[in-house]
Order: sequence, then structure tokens, then C-alpha cells
Amino acid sequence: MTLIVQKYGGTSVGTIERIHRVADRVAHTQREGNQVVVVLSAMSGETDRLVKLAHEVTTVPDEREMDMLLSTGERITIALLSMELRGRGINARSFTGRQVGIITDSAHTKARIARVTADRIKEALKQGVIPVVAGFQGINEQSDVTTLGRGGSDLSAVALAAALKADRCVIFTDVDGVYTADPNIVPAARRIDKIAYEEMLEMASLGAKVLQTRSVEFAAKFNVPVEVNSSFKEGKGTLVTKEDVDMEAAAIAGVTGDRNQAKITVIGVSDMPGIAARIFGAVAEAHINVDMIIQNMSQAALTDLSFTVPRADLKKAVPIIQAVAKDIEAKSVSVTEAIAKVSLIGVGMRSHSGVAAKMFEVLSREGVNIMMISTSEIKISCVIDEKYLELAMRSLHSAFDLDQAQS
Amino acid sequence: MTLIVQKYGGTSVGTIERIHRVADRVAHTQREGNQVVVVLSAMSGETDRLVKLAHEVTTVPDEREMDMLLSTGERITIALLSMELRGRGINARSFTGRQVGIITDSAHTKARIARVTADRIKEALKQGVIPVVAGFQGINEQSDVTTLGRGGSDLSAVALAAALKADRCVIFTDVDGVYTADPNIVPAARRIDKIAYEEMLEMASLGAKVLQTRSVEFAAKFNVPVEVNSSFKEGKGTLVTKEDVDMEAAAIAGVTGDRNQAKITVIGVSDMPGIAARIFGAVAEAHINVDMIIQNMSQAALTDLSFTVPRADLKKAVPIIQAVAKDIEAKSVSVTEAIAKVSLIGVGMRSHSGVAAKMFEVLSREGVNIMMISTSEIKISCVIDEKYLELAMRSLHSAFDLDQAQS
Repeated sequence: MTLIVQKYGGTSVGTIERIHRVADRVAHTQREGNQVVVVLSAMSGETDRLVKLAHEVTTVPDEREMDMLLSTGERITIALLSMELRGRGINARSFTGRQVGIITDSAHTKARIARVTADRIKEALKQGVIPVVAGFQGINEQSDVTTLGRGGSDLSAVALAAALKADRCVIFTDVDGVYTADPNIVPAARRIDKIAYEEMLEMASLGAKVLQTRSVEFAAKFNVPVEVNSSFKEGKGTLVTKEDVDMEAAAIAGVTGDRNQAKITVIGVSDMPGIAARIFGAVAEAHINVDMIIQNMSQAALTDLSFTVPRADLKKAVPIIQAVAKDIEAKSVSVTEAIAKVSLIGVGMRSHSGVAAKMFEVLSREGVNIMMISTSEIKISCVIDEKYLELAMRSLHSAFDLDQAQS
Repeated sequence: MTLIVQKYGGTSVGTIERIHRVADRVAHTQREGNQVVVVLSAMSGETDRLVKLAHEVTTVPDEREMDMLLSTGERITIALLSMELRGRGINARSFTGRQVGIITDSAHTKARIARVTADRIKEALKQGVIPVVAGFQGINEQSDVTTLGRGGSDLSAVALAAALKADRCVIFTDVDGVYTADPNIVPAARRIDKIAYEEMLEMASLGAKVLQTRSVEFAAKFNVPVEVNSSFKEGKGTLVTKEDVDMEAAAIAGVTGDRNQAKITVIGVSDMPGIAARIFGAVAEAHINVDMIIQNMSQAALTDLSFTVPRADLKKAVPIIQAVAKDIEAKSVSVTEAIAKVSLIGVGMRSHSGVAAKMFEVLSREGVNIMMISTSEIKISCVIDEKYLELAMRSLHSAFDLDQAQS
């Protein structure tokens, strides 16, 4: 018998009507002869409501207490869905993160899963019961409630699928899969049938927020096939799985755009050992992630050092950099917010040469100046002027044959 | 050091503003040199909201799932209060029913407490932490969440006070104590300073809904002094404790009225053994509680048998009784809803004779006809025409010297 873990997100269980539809789908999956384990998020809006209550109480809520508070949301949805299924004569049972043995570390509000026992789920499945499990939550070794951070229900589902050696983990959400690009920017974008874990990780971390990054890492580690599908319509979704032969047919899986970066340039830096370490050491100390770095020789013995930081951290980063610049006697510091990063992602790059050259050529043809470049085995990113982002994405999407067939 | 368990009901934690005030009081109690354990209900309205959700999902919600659902309400309030206290620099920690070891049977939605370990509370107190505990909930031996029924948070508080051998259990609610009668009916009613467990039980079961009955029984069993007080104003409350010398001063502690009964009379019943058993057997089978029973000899060998049942069960009871009446060849069945029960309660009755006689005399003087009478060691009840209930209560309250001194 096929064992399927189904995870439904907040919008999928956001109303009683939608919970009815989830019950329909669960019942249907079981009728087709599968074993089903259901993992649920809180009703959409519920977590925000609770966070708001906490902030009305106190400015910086204690994190252990925050977890006690937030973990109630999923308990509500698992109880409601189990009632619904039982009301239809289907033997379902709700289980909390604790009851299914999701054991985490003690990093409240962003705990990491240490192990999953899943004993009660195995027992329930043996008895023909559909376990309905609260996502997003676990307990630590002290038996205190922890939560796994935003999107943590995806991780719960994948971790359970791994522990149960499930045949598939289906993440039902409000989109029907992973697209070759954001359809709001690239209307010709099409749904990807199959994507490799590594590609998915790059897509997710660059802004295609369909699956939580940690859950993809977990799926890759334990080789859990994950399907992203829509809870609102029937049809195929995207299968996230290990790299296989099919995937090599195309060089590129998708195009992503990221507006969340800003560029800082330290101008007129002495080209001496240890200078870069001082600059980036100071930034790292402030817990700011530097993404891309570029160093241009400008005059004899002086260079310009440019790098990008998350736009949200810019205000924090600038005074730190200015102080370091003064120390190292750099000429000045300049800041540009209006940049964007356009990236091509695909495991096929490994076997297809010339992807970078073609990318630069396409951008050049469109008159888009490239400020910074970074490459990895399966990704090429260029920082460009923000105003060209949509143009760049559409041009690349088309040039790399990703556009859907015209109907 | 004095150890005080404080329980705050739903209206006391119904808004963020009120949670602030609870925090004030908890902090004040600690500053005065006491150890404090806090037990909380869900925010008022929250339980109703959840029950409504459940009934939107399915007509008869599964009871185990109902407990999973309802137990979220208290988790929210304990997290919020703990955050608030910690935000003020007071070391507080929230604990669920499970975490403090409230172990119950498996009668979901109305579980009974089997034992209370309270290990984590003892540990917390040792470390100077204020434990903030979710009332109303526990777990059964299978580690499934259970709830203790409406008003169950009172029981949680009393049970914890017993397990911790606390000096006092204070139940903060929206009234400032137990009154000699319902002040809405008897304006001269006054707050009782001290009342015996048994009196409180009679008061509670007859409609003075200040303390949940089971929690009073529990307090009596383990001799936990319980104080009922207002969370909205400062001042004395009512102490519920074991019977002591002071109490004998007054014969009567209070007057109660109950409109929740209806009277059924089976007319023309053969006065033969086994007839009563058939009638009440049938009623008991339908899980209907019969309160008072009276049998009047009417004609030779024929009697009328009257009894009261909860008004809410009348519709269910009547067809059952009519069927039995037909079987036993009784003449007819008559039903009266417009009755009420007025009762005098007091442990002092044991040492004061003539209470019953005086009660009948007062009612007679007011022209109130007595339909049925029942007595116990500490209570006398009369069923009367409903329209006289207020008059009867006020007259008795005054005649037994319960009216407050005129100011």
C-alpha cells in the first residue's frame, strides 16, 4: 500500500468550508487505496492574531511563552479536521507534535528537529486510523513546547514522511506548483513537472517562496519525494526529487529575481592583506549576511570593494561600514538600493556549457549593464539596475526556451 | 512562607487590559512575601468561539477531538500572562495540564482527576519561579488531552492546592463572594464571610453558581481552604472551609431559589409494590435525574405520584412516563412547568430545631402554598408556585435574620 503524507497550509484550512474540502481530498486519497497521514498548519490569520495579542501584552515576548501561544493554532485545525472526518464515519485522530514524537532542540520559535519517533502514527496506521498531525511544533527534551519557525509545517510533513519512509509527501498550498519564473513578472512562465532538490533550494532561497528551505534540505537529506500541489484545484503539481536523467534535457530550470539586496561600495581601499577581513568581520559581527562581493582595481594600489547585503539590514550596516572605512582610511562609502539580482538555475548547467556567455549576451542585447556576477555549479546570478529586472527576467526566460507553448 | 494558589476565571483574563491587572495582583501577592501559583481559564468568549467552530464542522463533534480543541484556550492565557510577568522582570513560567501532571480518566469533555503529581510546579517554586498553569485540562494515561467540564478550572486550582498542600486557594471571579441569596432577587442579601463546604455544595447545586460543585467536593475531601473573591475590586471575599464553631451562631447560611425543575404527576396509580420502581426505572434509563418525589393517597388503593425533573429534560421525560402510565393502567399524567424550589441551607440546622416549622409558617403567612417538601440534615426545600419564588425568598431571608444591616 502506498503511504502518502499530505500537508495543508493555512489558506487551505482557513475556513470551515475549506476544511470540508480538505476532508474530501483526504477521504478520496484513502478510498483510492492509500494510507494517509495529514499534517496541518493553523488557519490563515490565526498565527498573526496570536502574535498581535502577544505584542499587546509586552514589547518583547518571551520566546518559550511565544511557542506555548503559537502552538495552539495547529491544535485547533487538527481537532476540527478530525471531527469532520469522524463525522463522516472515517476513523481519524488528531495528534500534537509531542504526541507523534517530534523532538527538537530548545531554540524556541526556530527550533531544529533532533529526531522523530512517530510511534503513535505507526500504531494508528496499523489500526487503519488516519493520523491528523499538528505541523510547526514539537517538544524539547524538557517536554516544553517548541515551534519550528515560519513555514515549519512543511518541515513537519517532510520529517514525518522521512520517519515513516512514506512514498510521497504532498504539500498542498495556494499555488499549483513551482514555476519557471514568477508568473506575475513573466506571464509566459510555466509549471515545472519535476525539479531537483538543489534547484528547488536555489529557487526558494531566491524568492520563489513555495516550500520552506529547511524542508527541502531535509527532503534532500532523506530522499523524500515532495510534491507541491494546489489545494484548490485538481491536477498535476511539481515533484521535487533527486536529480535524474530526465532533468539533463534542459540546461535551465528557472529564472528568479530578487529585489531584497542593496549594494555598498567602499571606494579607495589600500590593496593590502587583512583589509577585506576587517570590513567583513565587522559586518558578520552584526549578524548581517553578505551575499556577493566584487573588488575592482581602480588606481595604483587602491581598489574599490563592492558587496551586497539584505536591504532590510542596510540601515544597520552603513554606520558599521563607515566606521571601518574611516579606520582603514578609505576614500568614501557609497550605497545603492536600486539594484536587483537576476539568476538562472538548473542542474543541467553541469553538462551544458555556454550558459553564462549566453546570459551575458542576452542582457547586453537588451542594454542591461551587469554590475556584479556570481556563479555556482547550478546557478548564475547577475546584479543589475533594479529598473531592468522584469525585462531581464522575461528576456532570459524566453532565450532559454522556458516560455510555455502558445495555445 | 505562605503558599497561595490563585485562580482567575474567563472574565478576569478576558482582555489584555485585564491580564495586566491580573499580573498586578500576582506581583503584589509575591511582593508581600508569598509563594504564588496561578491557574487560568480561557479568555471569556474563547471557549464559545471554539465550540461554535466545532459545530460548524459537524453536528456531533467527537469528544476526544473536542478536548484537543478546547484545551487551546487556556494555553493562550497562560502564555500571555507569563509573557507579561516576564516582561516586568518577574520569573514566571507557563505550564499545561500535562506538564504539571494532572492525570485524569478518559471521560473526554468531563474527565475526573485521578492524581496530580505537580513535580514541575514544586521544582519551579523551589527556584523562585511563579508557575502559571492552564486550568480545565489534563491528560489521560494514553497521554491524550482531556478537559474537566465547564468550570473545571476551579477544580484544577483546588486539586493543585491539595497536591501542593497550599495554605489557601483563592478563586478570583466576577463576584466578590458568596451571598446569603441572589442579590438580584433579594436586595438585602449580604456577603457571607465564612461558609462550610457542605453549605457551599448545597448553595452551588441549587443555583448559586459561584464555585463549581466538584471543586467544592474536592476541597472538602482534602480540606483545602478556598476563598472566593472579586478580581475587579479589593476587599474581603468568602472563605469556604470546614465547619467550625463560629458557624453555629446562625442557623441558616443562605436562601436559594431554583426554577429549573418541572413537576410530573401520575394520577390514579395502583398502590402496589413495584409500581414506583417501574416509573423511576424508566426515567433513570433515560438518564434523567429525579429530584423530589411525593406520593399522595387519593382514593382507596389508588395514589397520585408526583416528582420533579430538570425542566430541560421534560420533553424527553413526558413520553416515557406516558408509556409507563399506560402499562401500569394509571388514570393520567399531568405536567406543571410553573414551579420553583425555595431552600434554606445551613449547618446550624443540626443544632437549631424548629427551622422547618418556621419556614412553613413564613410561607403560609405570605399565602404561598407548599406543593412538595424535602429535607436533609442541612437543607430544607419546598416546591411552590413559580410566581411566588421572589416573595418567598425575600420573606425567608428576612425572617431568618439574614438581611444586611441598614446603613
